[in-house]
Formats: sequence, C-alpha cells, structure tokens
Amino acid sequence: MDTIIAPAGLKGVVVADTATGDVRGQQGFYHFRQYSAVELARQRSFEDVCHLMLEGHLPTPQESAAFRERLSGLSWLPPELDELLPAVARTGAGRASLARLRTVVSHLGALEQFPPTWGSDAERVRADVLRLVAAVPTIQAALFRLRRGEEPLAPRPELGAAGSWLWMLTGRLPAPEHRAAITAYLTSTIDHGFSASTFAARVVTSAGSDVASAVCAAIGTFAGPLHGGAPDRALDALDEIGAPGRARGWVRGRVAAGERIMGFGHAVYRTTDPRAALLRGIALELGGPLADLAVRVEEEVVAALAELKPGRELHTNVEYYAGVVMEQCGIPREMFTPTFATARVVGWGAHILEQTASPRIFRPSARYSGPEAPAPLPQD
Amino acid sequence: MDTIIAPAGLKGVVVADTATGDVRGQQGFYHFRQYSAVELARQRSFEDVCHLMLEGHLPTPQESAAFRERLSGLSWLPPELDELLPAVARTGAGRASLARLRTVVSHLGALEQFPPTWGSDAERVRADVLRLVAAVPTIQAALFRLRRGEEPLAPRPELGAAGSWLWMLTGRLPAPEHRAAITAYLTSTIDHGFSASTFAARVVTSAGSDVASAVCAAIGTFAGPLHGGAPDRALDALDEIGAPGRARGWVRGRVAAGERIMGFGHAVYRTTDPRAALLRGIALELGGPLADLAVRVEEEVVAALAELKPGRELHTNVEYYAGVVMEQCGIPREMFTPTFATARVVGWGAHILEQTASPRIFRPSARYSGPEAPAPLPQD
Repeated sequence: MDTIIAPAGLKGVVVADTATGDVRGQQGFYHFRQYSAVELARQRSFEDVCHLMLEGHLPTPQESAAFRERLSGLSWLPPELDELLPAVARTGAGRASLARLRTVVSHLGALEQFPPTWGSDAERVRADVLRLVAAVPTIQAALFRLRRGEEPLAPRPELGAAGSWLWMLTGRLPAPEHRAAITAYLTSTIDHGFSASTFAARVVTSAGSDVASAVCAAIGTFAGPLHGGAPDRALDALDEIGAPGRARGWVRGRVAAGERIMGFGHAVYRTTDPRAALLRGIALELGGPLADLAVRVEEEVVAALAELKPGRELHTNVEYYAGVVMEQCGIPREMFTPTFATARVVGWGAHILEQTASPRIFRPSARYSGPEAPAPLPQD
Repeated sequence: MDTIIAPAGLKGVVVADTATGDVRGQQGFYHFRQYSAVELARQRSFEDVCHLMLEGHLPTPQESAAFRERLSGLSWLPPELDELLPAVARTGAGRASLARLRTVVSHLGALEQFPPTWGSDAERVRADVLRLVAAVPTIQAALFRLRRGEEPLAPRPELGAAGSWLWMLTGRLPAPEHRAAITAYLTSTIDHGFSASTFAARVVTSAGSDVASAVCAAIGTFAGPLHGGAPDRALDALDEIGAPGRARGWVRGRVAAGERIMGFGHAVYRTTDPRAALLRGIALELGGPLADLAVRVEEEVVAALAELKPGRELHTNVEYYAGVVMEQCGIPREMFTPTFATARVVGWGAHILEQTASPRIFRPSARYSGPEAPAPLPQD
C-alpha cells in the first residue's frame, strides 16, 4: 500500500463521494443536491429543503404536508428533560450556548436510546436525524429563556421553522417579512460542503456510532473560533466601527495587530460568497440604518483589505450579513450562532445519513516525528 | 492545487506528523513517544506514562510526586454536578455508559468554562486535559453506582489510578495483583495511533474548540461498534463458546452467517497484537479456569479463522484478553468499555495538545456524485 502524505488540514483531498451538494469556490456558487442553494432559499420553505436534503428529493405538496406534520410531532421535548434543562441552562458563560446544546443533545440521545447507525436501517437513522432537526430549535430556545428566568415557549410549527423559532425566542408573533428573511437565512445555511463540523460528524458516524454522537461532535466543532458561523462577532465589529468613515482606519489597526477581520474571507470562496450576496439583498429589502451602514462599511473594508492584503481576494462572507439580518429581525445577539446551528443540523443529518450508507471507518495514518524508537526505558 | 482522491476511510493517508508515538502493524509493535508501550505498561505507573504522554517526558521522582498530587486534586467532582449526575445515571440502556459519560463531560466543560484551545496557551489546554483525565474515572464510577442505587465513592488516588478505579467500582480495597494487572491494562491502552476516536478529537480541536468538545467527539466515536474497544463483547463470545472443543464449530457458524468474530482481527496489526500478548501473559499469571479456557479457545479460533479466511492473518486483538483480565480482577462487565475510556482519554488529551500546537483546520474536499447541477428548480 502506497502512503499518501496529505496537505495540512486535508486541503484539496477528496475524502468521500457525496450527492448532498457541492461548493464551487471559484464561481461563487453552491448547490443542495442538484439545485442552486440560493434559489432554494429564495423560493422554497425551509421544511421542503430539509426534505430535499434528508429524503433526497423536493417533496410533492402531499409529501410536504406529511413531512411538516412529522417534524411538528418531533419538535416537543419530553418531560424527562424538565429537571436537566434548568440545570444546564444556568451553567457556563453567555457565549457557551453551543456547549449547553451539546449537553442536552447528548442526554436526549441516551434518553431516547438512539441505536448505533451501524446495523440500523436507513429509516431508523433518518428518524433520529429528524428528531434532532425538530428538537434542536426547541432545546435552544428553552435554554435561552430558562437562562433569563422565563418559561420556555412551546414551538408553533404552523408558523414554519423560521416563524416558530422567532416565536420561541421572543414570545411575539413575527412579522411576515421577518419570517421570510429568516426562512431564507436558515435555508441558505443548511449545508456547505465538508466543513470541519460536517467532516467531524462523518468521522464519528464512520465508526457506526449513533446520530446523537455525531451531532454532538459537529456542535463541538462548530463552536470552534476557526470554524466560522459566528455572525455575532461580525456584528460586534460593525458596532465597533460605528460609521463608514472609520472603517479603513479600523481595518488597518486590526491587520497591523495581526488580527482576523470577522465577516471577511472564506476557506473556499475566492469571489463573492453567494450567501453574503443573498443576505445583503435581504438586508436592503428590510431596510433601515443598520443595512445602510453595513453596505457602506463592506465597501470600505473590502477596499482596505485589497490594499493591505493584495491578491488574497477577501470578500464578505456569510457571517457579515447574517448578523445584520438577524439583528433586523429582532433575534438577540447571543442567539445568532444557535440560529445557525438550527439550520446546519439539517446538513449534518444529511451527511450522517449518507455516511451510514457506506460504512468505512476513518482511520488515517500519521508520520512519527519524535526521537528514534524504541529507546531503552529509563529505570525508576 | 492538485486534487488528491484519498482511499476510503483515509487508509494509508498521512494526515499529520506526530511525536506521540506510532503503531508498526507488520512488526506487532507500538510505542508511546520513544518507548515501547508494552515495556512502559510492565514497568511504570499509569500516572508516569500519563506524564510522558501529556508533558512529553517520563517524570523524575520529584516530578512524578508532583504530578500525582496534581491529578489527585483534579479527581473530585464539583457539587454543581450533584443534581445532574443522578438524572444522567438513570437515563438510557445499560450499554449506554459512554453516552452518559459524554453528557457529563459536555456539562463539565461548560460548568468549568473550558476556553477555546485556539488562543489559549499550552498550559491552559493541558490543565483542561488533566482535569478530564483525572475526573473521567470518578464520573464513570459515580454514574455506575448511582445507577445501582448506591452512593458514589470518593476516589482514592493514593492507591494509584488502577487501585482507585477498582475501589470506586467495588468499594473494596483491591488485591495488589489486581492493581498491577489493571495498571498494565490501563497503561497499554492509553494510545494507539490515529484511531477514529483520536482522529475525531483532532478534527474538533483543529477548529480551535475547547478540550471538552474534542473529548465528547472522541467518546461518541469510541462508542461506535466498528471502533473496537468493547472487551465485554469478546468475553460474551467466550461465554457463549463455553468449552474449547466447541470453538471451531462456533466460529464456523459465525463466519457462515457473515458475522464478525469479536476479539479477533485488527485494522493495523497483521501479526500478534502486542497488547493481546501482554494481557495473555497477565491473565495466565493471575490464573484460574477462565484464563485456561481463553488460551485454548484462542488457539482453536485462530486455527479456524486461518482455515476459513486464509491469508487474512486474523489474530487475537486487545479486546479478547482485556475482557479476561478485567473479569479476573472483578470489574463488572458493563464497566469494561468505561475502563478502556479511562485510559484512552489520556491519549486523546495528548493528541489534542499536539493538534493545538499546529492549528490548521481539517476541511477536506468531496467529489459530487449526484445529478448534474444546477438543475432548474421545480415550482411549488
């Protein structure tokens, strides 16, 4: 067997075939199965795109209604969580929302006895994926409200995924334009190639582990500051800048200090991130001073980065306008990343399902770089 | 950038340089840093080998005493877990012990506010690793006893890791030969190359996530039936066989049914698993009818597999004699896999520390294999 020395981080290494979709970094295009993700986000419901990702095709109207009904039935939390949720909710720092979600998903998997994916049929694995897709928003909203000393609100699936999410967070019936905006955001965020969290979910699944194990690993990866997907940091930067005229100076200071500019640059895209373009459009449709500021700051930052880091092609990424849109729709800032997780769990589920169908455990090699072995053992 | 199509499961693909050690499958040899793992298991304490793996060198006597003191201080559980532990303990099936551990580790990470590894210095990451190395046995023993309606027992670090573990499980002072046997088992099990669980921990860490996130992912991977490390299954098979004369018939039946023979065969070793050889020796030293049966059944099963699957080189793996030794030392069978986890968390920790030092996020590629995209979007 020949040994392959992979590039750092497995960059450019094809580790699987996938029918879930693809990201074309040079073209600024990505797709879910065979459809443009941006078109889906603009034109279909979140639930229909879940169906596409998890069942393999866009639903007929009858399938769509049945699928919504099924998700609705899976969106409640069992009474056995009544004791655990408050204890988890009051634990950890404000930013640790993903850690709290990880704990509850882990517990739910044990409580509902998710079986190993290895040896389970696809329908059983899909049922566990759907359980988490439906329950993760309810869990996150419950933890948020309990943390603030408020009673959790039951989901309202008849409002759609985005509407129910806004309802559970705020306790107010969301405006139609906010439902539409968050639907587009959630849908566009469902999947995005073999990000580290998705890859982690596949590695765990490759050992035949259960769906909760794989999703816990993905959540933990997603929490990493190098993963991306933290729109609150991008919006914090926008707050700090405050006015378009201050953007260039702010970027210069950051770059000189060797810091990353949150909301700009992406591992794969070498041109405009199509998600940023989609969300910029939505932000401008929603309107208001924040959207205006964001567009003007974007121009300044992109220009400054082109000057300071020529050839790097640093464009706005999904985080930047995602934060703007969520702020416009009244989502509390600490719930920006949980909102992202609400969508991405669908993508993780699609990858878990696909990985289950071809079980070959990921067990790579490494190159030993320490002192020559075996060395004689020093005696105590 | 050239695209590399990796073999399934990344088999033979070098994904990192490592100084933690290596596995030489053809030679039946593995080492921790520069020392033979089997020699370490025979001659050094578990704590000293933890020091080797996590600090990079075998400790001097002074360092050894200080390190034990430090681990001892980290082995208690905080009172904030008093509420969570019983709720977790009574949840899920008997076999779900790793799922319960995952929940508590996840919660502990939030409770003690483990920071992202990215941006933390090595000492902070090492402190979190040591916290889990010291606390994981206490957590697992507490869950085990609470599940049986018994009060958890405080750890007794002065008995050594193996002695304290046996004490917390049984409430009896362990015999010296049992302490020695479990010390050798735990030490030999600390690490074993880039297994799927270790790789999962490294993928999570590569995103800059905290130590608890990485260990949760590893635990979830380790729970997978394709991972290995479930000595109870190998011992169940031994029970089923019952007598050496029935071994060949039993193997033939299993192979004919397309089933795996637990305790035999390994992804990397093409000769005797050195851990199996070590533990066979220890089992025979401890003596008794189970050891005699195991040795005779091993001969029969290896002979039958050589006949039924010629050229496959299926030898006894670590699970087979690990189960025998743990049974001889009075560890309840449902705690066999948790015992393995007690040791392996050290290896995960060593890999997390090493991965932290070279942060490059794992973001591989995939090859799209679905219908041609973009296809026109069907209208609702």
